[in-house]
Order: sequence, then structure tokens, then C-alpha cells
Amino acid sequence: MSLKQISEVKVSGGRLLRVEHLSAVCNGSMTFAIFLPPQAKQVTETKMVPVLYWLSGLTCNDENFSQKAGAFSMATKLGMAIVMPDTSPRDAAIGGEDEAYDLGTGAGFYVNATQAPWSDAYNMYSYVTEELPSIIQTHYAVSDQAAISGHSMGGHGALICALKNPGKYASVSAFAPITSPSQCPWGRKGLTAYLGSDEDTWADWDASHLVQKNHDAGIIPQAILIDQGASDPFYADQLMPELFNATCERLHHPVDYREREGYDHSYYYISSFIDEHLQYHAANLGITA
Amino acid sequence: MSLKQISEVKVSGGRLLRVEHLSAVCNGSMTFAIFLPPQAKQVTETKMVPVLYWLSGLTCNDENFSQKAGAFSMATKLGMAIVMPDTSPRDAAIGGEDEAYDLGTGAGFYVNATQAPWSDAYNMYSYVTEELPSIIQTHYAVSDQAAISGHSMGGHGALICALKNPGKYASVSAFAPITSPSQCPWGRKGLTAYLGSDEDTWADWDASHLVQKNHDAGIIPQAILIDQGASDPFYADQLMPELFNATCERLHHPVDYREREGYDHSYYYISSFIDEHLQYHAANLGITA
Repeated sequence: MSLKQISEVKVSGGRLLRVEHLSAVCNGSMTFAIFLPPQAKQVTETKMVPVLYWLSGLTCNDENFSQKAGAFSMATKLGMAIVMPDTSPRDAAIGGEDEAYDLGTGAGFYVNATQAPWSDAYNMYSYVTEELPSIIQTHYAVSDQAAISGHSMGGHGALICALKNPGKYASVSAFAPITSPSQCPWGRKGLTAYLGSDEDTWADWDASHLVQKNHDAGIIPQAILIDQGASDPFYADQLMPELFNATCERLHHPVDYREREGYDHSYYYISSFIDEHLQYHAANLGITA
Repeated sequence: MSLKQISEVKVSGGRLLRVEHLSAVCNGSMTFAIFLPPQAKQVTETKMVPVLYWLSGLTCNDENFSQKAGAFSMATKLGMAIVMPDTSPRDAAIGGEDEAYDLGTGAGFYVNATQAPWSDAYNMYSYVTEELPSIIQTHYAVSDQAAISGHSMGGHGALICALKNPGKYASVSAFAPITSPSQCPWGRKGLTAYLGSDEDTWADWDASHLVQKNHDAGIIPQAILIDQGASDPFYADQLMPELFNATCERLHHPVDYREREGYDHSYYYISSFIDEHLQYHAANLGITA
């Protein structure tokens, strides 16, 4: 596995790298960004920095969070690496992949596609939970301690990655996540394309269903931090946090739901609360800053 | 004077507005952004928030600082408004105005042009020092206490605005400023176009000359905070901080020069140190947070 570093810039005392590599599970070139705090220079076998995986939303690539979230000052303070994958394969040579903002390029939905023409490349779930962490572990001075977060489609991604892998992430949080993709237009469009029209196959990729499934399997629930702008224009039609909250309440799955009066769906909103989330993950990762 | 508010978004507890208006001095439509911290709601005749004017660099508009600097959390903490003008007129119907990144659109250089075809519209100096502050004072809950800062071409702008108006700004700072525009390619190109080829007319728009001029006039010097990335790719050919520093040292003009090892010219660099600058201006504006 060879990595091609596209760029490196110093920010908030740390280093922000953009890296291109061939992905086996996505069957082509993928790009990710990684922020390494200054503490990551001091690599020893017993002390490496933990890592937060950030999954972005529709239309984003690996750069939006870096440029707009304002997270790196706190990440340096805490000594936390942040990995920012792209949101889909690009140039996968799939007809129509660039036509819609909510399907194909920039819209991988963090699932493993089973349907042609997507299934060869659109395996973002395996990419962000297995292949990418393996690369990160191999090439950078980060520990195996990981947390996960994301925004909108990426909030959905963070939730399903954590719910499908109990014990894998020290903590999980989400900004304005799509918590019930089976029941909203964005999710139904993506899941139909990637997984087919048999809705039974969607359950394994829907946070609301996964909470129920884990409950039925007797899995000890992991607390979820959900952040939501009360003035988010997608609140009622796409995000529907009350559906997920009701499911969690019924099943006694702990959710720390923080609704923010007046905030919308943008990175201005994310930037206003990202420090809180980093501190939340730091506490769960055992960071004492 | 009627203002047209283009957008409003909540960020870091405050409000970020984008506003379009007709400018008399720029002879057409101009757009600015203003961040109002939550303290600005509490308008009384005796308590209004002070304001920082931020002048952006080449190719920027009123949005770059808002999206990438990560300044609003500290601005809220300090109770400071931030006004972000555009960097030039746009659509001024001047032939070739959009052809080069360093002349015309996005490159007003904060001067008052004397040469055709620029002189009708390209009067950014009067715009940022007089017309815009008058609009801000009239329409928003900010006090008449102001400070000024900027980046690159906007750092040059901040310096000349302060040097040409002793007492107008409580403090001035600049990130990677063009301190000697008469002696660098960017500056020479802009000043030639806007002011003509008689270099004697440039002196009044060149920070290095203005420091000398103020000294000769017996004006008490105002301290200048200059921030500079040591790995800035424009350091040697365009910015040449040592020229300005030498002039200031010779004339005993106080400069707090902070060179940052490893940092470049980007907003990643600005975001790493903007809080320091806001705190510097707050101290000079008499803010006690």
C-alpha cells in the first residue's frame, strides 16, 4: 500500500496532510486528510495520540471540515489526531455518478453497495471502518484508540459505524445526523440505489433499526451524543431527530441530545460546537489535557 | 442609504450578516459581512460593542475570513464585532477587470485610484475608512471604537489605513502584509494601474513611506503588530518584512513582529493566530472580558 502525500500545511501547531492512495475496497484512488497534533511527533510504543474519524456530509470532500470547522486548535490542546475521509469514490467511471448532489460522487452514504453499477466502488463502510484505519495505523503515529463523529449523511455514517461495531469506538457523536435513512428522501434514494428496492436489506444501515437490533441481541448500549440545530432547514423532512430519540427512549438507549436554538445545518453551526464534541471524545478516549 | 441583507446565520452565539448596498465612493454595488456578537443585542447609548475591520487579501471576497479564520468564538468571548468588506468593486464594467488575480476584481489594494478606467470605482481606501464605517455606525449596535487588521494585500490596507489616520484606530495588526508595495511585483503592478507610473504618487499608499512621513511630521507613532509565517512562499519576493522592520527600527516606530516557524500564507496560518490578534485588539479597545 503506497501513499501519495498531496500537501502538508502547518496549522494550530500541528500538521494537516492530504493523502491519495489506491483503495482495494473502493476499487480506485481515494483521498483523505489527517490532522496530526504536535504531540504525534513524540512516537513511542507506549504513547501515541488517539484519533477521531470525521465523516462529512453530502457534497463534501476531505477538505470541508479542515477549512471550516475550526477544530484544530482544540485538537492540539487535547493531543488528538483527526482523520477526514472523502465522502465517496470519485471518477469511478459509473454513468451518472456526477449528476445528482445526493447520489454517487459526494454521496456514498457510508454503506457497502450491493447493486450494479455501484457495488464495485461504493463500499465506503468497509473503507472507513477497516481499510482506512488500517492505513492510518500503519503510517501515522496514532494509537488504536478511536472515536467517530460526522455531519448529516456523515452523522448517519458515524452512528451506523458505531452501532454495527460495539466496542470499536470509544465514543460516537453526530451533528444533524440522518438518523432514519429508511424514512427520509435522501436516505431512501441512496439506499434504493446502493442496496436495491428490498427495504429489508436497508435495516442493517439505518441507525434507528440498528438500535433495535442491538437491543434485541442484548448488546450493552453505548451512549450517543447528538447535536442538532433547531433552525436546520432539513430538520423536519430529512433528519427527523424525534423518531430516533423516541426509539432510543423506548429501548433505554442513552442519547445526549443537544438541540441548539437558532442554528442551521452549515459549518458555521458545526464550528460553534465542535470543541464540545472534541472534549466529549477526549474524555471517552481517556485524554487528560 | 438602503441596505439589502443577503443572509443571516447564527454562529458562536452571534449573528453573521452579509449585506449588499450601493456605494457612492465605489460607484456601484458593494457587499460586506458583519459579525455581531451576542453582546451587540444589548444596545444602549452608553454600551455598544467595539468593531474590528478585517481587510482580506488578493482574490478574496467578504466570505473567506468568515468561513476559514475561526475567529467568531473569540469575538463572542470578547464582545467584539467584526466587519469584513469585499476586496474591490465587482462588475464595474471596466474592460479586463476580471482577467488577472492581482489587478481589478479582488485586488483593489485599498487605494483611491486616480487613473482611468479605475478611478470611478476603485476607491477602496475611502470606502473602508469612511463610507463603510459610516454605514456600520448608522445601522448596527457598534460603538465608534474601532481597530483594524488584515492579510497580505489586506495587511497592507490595514497598515496604510492606520498610518494615514493617526488616532482613528485603537490598534492595528497585520498577517503577512505587503509592507513595501512600491518595491514588490504585486504592489508595483497595482499602484501603476491605479495611480499611474509617477512613483512619487505611490508614497502616500506605501506603509514604509508612511512611517517615514509620519516621523517627519512629528506624529507620535502607534505600535504595529505584524504576524508573518516563516515558510510563507511570498516572503522574499512580495512581503519582504525585513525592509519595513528596518525602517521602523531606524525611526523608532514600535513594531511587535511575530514570525511563526513553519507557517505559510494560508487561512490555516491565520486561523492559528487570529485569537492572539483579537485579544491584542481587545486590550487596546479597552475590552475587559
